[in-house]
Amino acid sequence: MLKIRRVAIDTHPENTAFLLRSADGYGAEQFQAMRKIEITGNAGAILATLAISDDPHIVGVGEIGLGEQAFRRLGLAEGDSVSIAQAKLPRSLEAVRRKIGGDVLSDSEIAAIITDVAAYRYSPMEIGAFLVACAGFMTTQETLALTRAMADAGDRFDWHAPLVVDKHCIGGIPGNRTSMIVVPIVAAHGLIIPKTSSRAITSPSGTADTMEVLATVDLSAERMRAIVASEKAVLAWAGRMNLSPADDVLISVERPLRIDTFEQMVASILSKKLAAGSTHMVIDIPVGPTAKVRSQGEAVRLRKLFEYVAHKIGLTIDVILTDGTQPIGRGIGPVLEARDVMAVLRNDADAPDDLRERALLLAGRVLDFDPELQGGRGYARALDILASGKALAAMERLISAQGAQTETFRPGALRSEILAEEDGSVAAIDCHLIARIARLAGAPMDKGAGIDLLRKVGDQVRRGEPLYRIHAQSETGLRFACDLAAEGSGYRLLS
Amino acid sequence: MLKIRRVAIDTHPENTAFLLRSADGYGAEQFQAMRKIEITGNAGAILATLAISDDPHIVGVGEIGLGEQAFRRLGLAEGDSVSIAQAKLPRSLEAVRRKIGGDVLSDSEIAAIITDVAAYRYSPMEIGAFLVACAGFMTTQETLALTRAMADAGDRFDWHAPLVVDKHCIGGIPGNRTSMIVVPIVAAHGLIIPKTSSRAITSPSGTADTMEVLATVDLSAERMRAIVASEKAVLAWAGRMNLSPADDVLISVERPLRIDTFEQMVASILSKKLAAGSTHMVIDIPVGPTAKVRSQGEAVRLRKLFEYVAHKIGLTIDVILTDGTQPIGRGIGPVLEARDVMAVLRNDADAPDDLRERALLLAGRVLDFDPELQGGRGYARALDILASGKALAAMERLISAQGAQTETFRPGALRSEILAEEDGSVAAIDCHLIARIARLAGAPMDKGAGIDLLRKVGDQVRRGEPLYRIHAQSETGLRFACDLAAEGSGYRLLS
Repeated sequence: MLKIRRVAIDTHPENTAFLLRSADGYGAEQFQAMRKIEITGNAGAILATLAISDDPHIVGVGEIGLGEQAFRRLGLAEGDSVSIAQAKLPRSLEAVRRKIGGDVLSDSEIAAIITDVAAYRYSPMEIGAFLVACAGFMTTQETLALTRAMADAGDRFDWHAPLVVDKHCIGGIPGNRTSMIVVPIVAAHGLIIPKTSSRAITSPSGTADTMEVLATVDLSAERMRAIVASEKAVLAWAGRMNLSPADDVLISVERPLRIDTFEQMVASILSKKLAAGSTHMVIDIPVGPTAKVRSQGEAVRLRKLFEYVAHKIGLTIDVILTDGTQPIGRGIGPVLEARDVMAVLRNDADAPDDLRERALLLAGRVLDFDPELQGGRGYARALDILASGKALAAMERLISAQGAQTETFRPGALRSEILAEEDGSVAAIDCHLIARIARLAGAPMDKGAGIDLLRKVGDQVRRGEPLYRIHAQSETGLRFACDLAAEGSGYRLLS
Repeated sequence: MLKIRRVAIDTHPENTAFLLRSADGYGAEQFQAMRKIEITGNAGAILATLAISDDPHIVGVGEIGLGEQAFRRLGLAEGDSVSIAQAKLPRSLEAVRRKIGGDVLSDSEIAAIITDVAAYRYSPMEIGAFLVACAGFMTTQETLALTRAMADAGDRFDWHAPLVVDKHCIGGIPGNRTSMIVVPIVAAHGLIIPKTSSRAITSPSGTADTMEVLATVDLSAERMRAIVASEKAVLAWAGRMNLSPADDVLISVERPLRIDTFEQMVASILSKKLAAGSTHMVIDIPVGPTAKVRSQGEAVRLRKLFEYVAHKIGLTIDVILTDGTQPIGRGIGPVLEARDVMAVLRNDADAPDDLRERALLLAGRVLDFDPELQGGRGYARALDILASGKALAAMERLISAQGAQTETFRPGALRSEILAEEDGSVAAIDCHLIARIARLAGAPMDKGAGIDLLRKVGDQVRRGEPLYRIHAQSETGLRFACDLAAEGSGYRLLS
């Protein structure tokens, strides 16, 4: 039996445990050779990767150190007793090995894998192995089973209503913050739209990051239910909700490995929406040379997969292919995006047209789900709600219901403009590169960091005039972003 | 610029760096989101996984903590200054992604991947992705390119002789310690056999672990050359040699993922032997229901792959399919195996026959490479050398040249016998399970831990009589091993 010591080391997303190398008996190295140990206390057991310490100040004889993740997930107090053993590998790894070998897995095998993933029984290496094996090939039946298993692995919302709408963009387009316009429009119309969003993982901002500039997004399920009851809507961070927790674990490995298969994308999005209690959903697939989907042919294949799985799990969806050739709006990063969103909701004269039009298109298609609005009248209704100021009013009520942000965030004071190297018209903007530059500047954690686009595709620019402005809150962030922009601005000019 | 602090945490095989969460400026979490950072000092740069600390005793403001692996590989002193940046992903990861997508890689793409792997630029997750993608399918040309790239990535021995022999078993059979008998026989005959061996990673003992019971195995390349010059042979640990270092990195991920494809096995073995300067080699493929190769058909496929790649890289090989239906000899674990080996070399009456016969078979085939011994006279010559005591004398000279072990190891004093639950004759012994039990008992790190088999296939046993004895040096090890043996002894009896 060992006593728990909390070690103030964060090894997100993995559990890490620490043993002293020189402790007597069965040695730390004997455990480490197998990489994983099972730690059992009276509140249950967790698996953790073992690190060996030679410093008795970190972990002493008779103790086991637990990093932040392991400590939290085991759920015991410092000084409590636990026993350790070589980790028995999750049985479902046998199915992963069969998948690596080229087999098609059964629904129950996929369910077993996802249950173990959601319980943190897989290491990132093992998750990577599963994802890569699936990336090799995956049947539609496997994708369907994966979606169901992921939705089943967490909590579910039930809104007790026949029509609960949502919209979701597959991502990849910086500045594409339409949800924060669509949700108030739809709520003002009177449909239920409980929108949960993620924070950015590798992009410069997620809807939750941008909404947080204006209001609290870290809401309990109970608060969220109360807000939806009064406002028909919410714009909350999904992280607190335990919706499809396996998805969060899988994403933590997919992103660094840049695994972005259609099958994983469909299972990830639809499992979260199924768990969130949606019944009808618009899915936005931007198509462009630097977007996630690069051709119409690919887009059609993805749409069909969405439609197949959604149909089987009982979700009504409307998949829209949109223009993904450049960023949407001007601002990229939480503060700059929130500024654009509010300009559109306020009907400001200089609000970005493309953001406004994209939001109206999507809001219109969501409203088309309403049987009261027949014959494609959704767009006209959305336009009316936005232009009349009802959408702004709905957003203000939503902000007040969630709790207005008490801190005032401003665009980062450290700035640098990236200039055109020649005269010409903007032919293309690289979404992927612009996102990376904004990210390096510090977004989304530095809320004011990011990029303000001063020219969009089709604009004329003269040599020496600025293409965009980088905002940062730290010298380091500004330098990292400028260094990458110096390698290539992301703009292609035609003279 | 940050100052290095050494953190006494061992995260083998990965590099880990530690930053204080609350430090000012560009935050630790902003780096961590990308998981990997590049640390640059005046001796070069390394990549490391970032962990965040909240404890200023582990790492302070203005400091970066480096775990043991990162500290050693960066090669600077505590207090030296380094800069950090988001890690640029190795370019070769693009090729890995193409492989995941189903492409065949070119020789130069494979070489680039292996160069990056050998330089620790890949995380275990990324290595896993590469291995799983290769496990999906791999052409013979890719296997050949992988073998060459792995051999090229490290140092090479050149023995300046036309005939440098070796033998290698693909593993999986506990107690199969023939190398320690074959090497002295071949050396006594007069061929050059510079045998480098690995330590066990997930098995209960490697040849290096067992030889270490008798002699020093951790030899410098220079010492090794001197010993081969005088003794024609050596039995050294390969770990010091930097032969095919990428292989060591790949194996550290293959083993926990239990990826064991023929392509990886061939590339791993032949790259190490090519780098070790062998010209002629016998390869032992045990075939049995619990061995690595489970059928004759599989064995033939593996043999062909060995022959193809060996031919292309200029190695002459002789592949032998052997009986892999049960462990070889009686002892499993370093001390118990060394006891069996010495009994065979001494021609003791009770030396295990199967170990003796297997070693003679393999030694004979190695001696057949000698053009002086024509017409398959190798076996008779090997028998003569062993029976006459010349092999024992060669082994004693080798032990003395490498440096006799000063510590005396004995079989673990903590013992437990596993008993037959019914009368019958032993029909089968599960190699894989027996290896796991011996491993849990503490082998190979506890040299005296392991298993002594008291019955082999074909033996009669009565209910309550012992099948084997578990030896351990710690109560924990004995308990772990007995717990697993209680789930199933690994013996199948026929009544």
